[in-house]
Order: sequence, then structure tokens, then C-alpha cells
Amino acid sequence: MNGVTIANKTVGRLSLYRRLLESAIPSEREYVFSHELAALACVTPAQVRRDFMSTGCSGSPGRGYRTKDLIESTSAVLDEPAGQNVALVGVGNLGRAILSYFSGRRPNLRITASFDIDPQKTGRVINGCRCHSMSELGEVLGRERISAAILAVPAGKAQDTTDALVAAGIRGILNYAPVPLRVPDGVFLEERDMTMSLETVAFFARKTALERK
Amino acid sequence: MNGVTIANKTVGRLSLYRRLLESAIPSEREYVFSHELAALACVTPAQVRRDFMSTGCSGSPGRGYRTKDLIESTSAVLDEPAGQNVALVGVGNLGRAILSYFSGRRPNLRITASFDIDPQKTGRVINGCRCHSMSELGEVLGRERISAAILAVPAGKAQDTTDALVAAGIRGILNYAPVPLRVPDGVFLEERDMTMSLETVAFFARKTALERK
Repeated sequence: MNGVTIANKTVGRLSLYRRLLESAIPSEREYVFSHELAALACVTPAQVRRDFMSTGCSGSPGRGYRTKDLIESTSAVLDEPAGQNVALVGVGNLGRAILSYFSGRRPNLRITASFDIDPQKTGRVINGCRCHSMSELGEVLGRERISAAILAVPAGKAQDTTDALVAAGIRGILNYAPVPLRVPDGVFLEERDMTMSLETVAFFARKTALERK
Repeated sequence: MNGVTIANKTVGRLSLYRRLLESAIPSEREYVFSHELAALACVTPAQVRRDFMSTGCSGSPGRGYRTKDLIESTSAVLDEPAGQNVALVGVGNLGRAILSYFSGRRPNLRITASFDIDPQKTGRVINGCRCHSMSELGEVLGRERISAAILAVPAGKAQDTTDALVAAGIRGILNYAPVPLRVPDGVFLEERDMTMSLETVAFFARKTALERK
């Protein structure tokens, strides 16, 4: 990832700070302190200050940060000014919930195309998004300038689908399929295996509950 | 987390290895090598061997691990033999997709109770799971011996709901609400903010696609 100098987790926290600034800080507040955002984001004030430093935004010890400056400098990092389109692959129960979840959430980041192998779904608009067949992948991704995709297909289809996505120009994948993916260098991958998460939470919940008895 | 000697990420990988052993390794294979599982799980063979060592299972250099032994020793770590019940809080689009996703997936780990504040939903069976009102939280969690919960409520309700869950005995939370949670020591928390994940993937996809031009 040559030339990308900002860390994965920093980008995630900037996404969170921006949402907190927009939703949890009253809009009449012209200034906000790093410790206020830190409390909302469950991180340290020093972390907040380091993260904003990477966006080129600095505050004053007495007044804190100007809220508007923070939102603007964070958006300058996170957003493509012309808007960025994203694809969803796999329009099952989870895929449809993902479409609903992101619908209208951020004006600059939209799921504009979905793909499925089921001919009952292709050609239709499902949860506000047109569903295409997999054979249209290259054409649609090119036309809509899509470089990021969310994967919500069954385990057995995940690697083949990923290979097709990468061949069609996808450079970032958010994977909700219950199997890890292999991607070439230069493709960013975020794994979000729900079964792994639930089994981990269930394990520690049980252990902790037992210790308390 | 006194007394819990196994790491968070190890538990996650054991969950993955078990699913790969059950689904991606042919059932007639009596033995499997660490490098085969490593390739499927996208980790190193040494990682696989270390992880299985923590379950007390060892293989032989010539034949590898006995598949049946691996599944049994992994299940002995991950599963409560009598089965473990989990609660879902928030039966919106995402919550319903989560119910469908986990339905029948693992016999020993089931979502047996859901909760919502919407009186149109409470008292009904939704996606195979009975939906209760929040006022029944303590009674239902106690009766069904539930110590783990999945949170899929809107951001504005997430912290209050979490406090109620912890007060009612929940010791592990898988959080899909788009806001970080504060939990007391001894409560295990896994954050799964979908907006943060998508904005991160979109950011790196865009940067990488730009570099290639």
C-alpha cells in the first residue's frame, strides 16, 4: 500500500469521530475538547489529538477544536468529493439488511449496484438498489467507477467471487462471508466473520459468568 | 478477566478452524496437516499448531492431526456441552438478518430470545425467535440462563440498552450498533460498527485505485 500513510485504525476512528460530531455533540457548540470526544469514542484524549493531527487539524488548549473544522478536515480525508460508489455482492437476508442499513446513511458513500446469481433477483431493484447478474460485473463496476465492495455470499462462493471482483478492478473488500479470503497485495480486506465474533463473545461471556458463581 | 487464559483472537481462530474442518476438509480424511488448515484459514502453519496446542491437541509430523480429535478438542473449548443461549436486542432489519443468519448454524449456540421496544413486535415469533419487551429482560435472561447478547439497536439507544443488559447479568456483548459502548470490567465486548468498516474499506480502495492510475 505505497503512498498510503494513514493507518487502518486511524481511518476507522476518524469515521467514528465524524459521526459523533454530527450526532452526539449539540450543533450549537462551536468548540469541542478532545476529552469530550474521547469519552464518547471510548478512547484517550491523546489518541483523539493524534488522530486529528493526521488530518492537519489542531485545537487550542483553552477552547479545544472548532467543531466545523474537525468535520471538514475529517471529511477531506474520508470522502471523495464527487461521491464514492460501492457494490454489494450477495443479495440474501444479510445482503438486504446491509442495503437497508446503509441506505441514505452517508450522502458521499452509496451502495449503487448489487449482484447476485439468482435470476429471480437480477434485473430488479431490491431495497433501493438495482441487482445485476454476475456476468455484468466488469461492465457495471467500470461504468459506476466502483473500487470497493461488500461481500455477503455463502462460504462456498466467497473466494471465486473475490477473484472475480479483483479481476474487475475492486481494491477494497468488506467480507461478511463466513470464510477468510485470499487477496493479492494492493487489495485492502476487512474480515467481518459473524460466527467467529459470536462464538468468541459467547465463550468469554460463559467463562466470566462461571467465575462469578 | 481472571482465570481466562486463552486469548480473544485464539478463540476466534478456533471457531474458524472448526468450521473449516467440518466444511472444507472432506469427511473421509482421517488426518489433516497444519499447513492445509493454515492455507484455508489464511494464517501460518505455526499459528495453527500454537492454537491447537492451547486446546491440548497435538499432531504427528508424519501424519498431521487426527481430524476427529481436532473437532472434539476445539468443541470442548468453544462449546457449553448443555448448549448456550444468546439474546438479540433490536429486531429491526439488521436484527432480523442476524436471526436468519444464525438460525440452525450451530446446534450448541442458539439465539433463543429477542427483545425490542416496538409493541408491534413484542409477543410475536420473528424469524423463528420470540420477541419480548425490554421490561421482561431480567426475567427472560435469568430463565434461559443467557449471558451473551447481540446488540442491533439504533445509536441513541445503545448505551442505555447496554447498561440494562449488564444489570441483568449479560457478560458478553457483540455490538452492531453504530456507536462504541462503555462496559464495566469483566464484561467482554466485541465492537462491529459497520459504518466504520465500510468507510475504512472505501478509503483504502480509493487510495489504491488512485495509485494505480
